Amino acid sequence: MLALSNIFSQIPSELKEEFFQELISKDGFKIERIISKGHVTQDGEWYDQKSDEWVVVLKGEAILEFENSDKVRLKDGDYINIPAHKKHRVSWTKPDVETIWLAIHY
Amino acid sequence: MLALSNIFSQIPSELKEEFFQELISKDGFKIERIISKGHVTQDGEWYDQKSDEWVVVLKGEAILEFENSDKVRLKDGDYINIPAHKKHRVSWTKPDVETIWLAIHY
Repeated sequence: MLALSNIFSQIPSELKEEFFQELISKDGFKIERIISKGHVTQDGEWYDQKSDEWVVVLKGEAILEFENSDKVRLKDGDYINIPAHKKHRVSWTKPDVETIWLAIHY
Repeated sequence: MLALSNIFSQIPSELKEEFFQELISKDGFKIERIISKGHVTQDGEWYDQKSDEWVVVLKGEAILEFENSDKVRLKDGDYINIPAHKKHRVSWTKPDVETIWLAIHY
C-alpha cells in the first residue's frame, strides 16, 4: 500500500518560526510544504534561488514582494511561477491562521 | 508583474471528459491540473508512466486503484507519491462536484 498523507494535517501546534517540510526531493527537484502564521522573511533579506519555483497558497493569505517592488497578494488556490534568480520575499502572512503553501522547486 | 492564477477558478462549465491542463512544463518535468466530475479511467486501462508522479486532491474526492488491487480514497488535501511504472487508474470520482487534482510529474 502506498502511503497517503494530508497537506492540511499535522500542523505543528506552536509555530515560532516559519515551518519548512520537504515532501519529495530528487536531483535538484523538490516539493515542500511551508506553514506560516504571521511570519515574514527577515527585513532586508531576499530569496535568490537557482531553480524556478512554482508556489500555491492552499489556505490562509500572504503577500509576496519582488525586488522591483511589485507586491502580489495570494489567497486560497492562488499560484504563481517565480523564475530562478527573481528576488522575492514574503512581506506579510495572515497573523491569526496558518497559511499553507506548496512550493515546487524545479 | 508576474502572472497570478487560481487553481480553483476557470472550471469548464461542461466536462464531457476529464480535463487536463498543463500549468508548467520543462525538461520532462510537468505540473498539471486535472478536473474530474464522475470521470474514471476507461475500463481495463492503466496509467504506466515513465516519470514519478506526486498527486494531491485539492477539492472533491476520488479513488485510485493500483495493479495489486490496492485502492486508495483521496479527499481534500490528500496526497500520494506514485513511483514510475507503478500501474494505476482512477476507479471513481465524485459524480456531483468537480474533483480538482494537482499532479506533478518529475
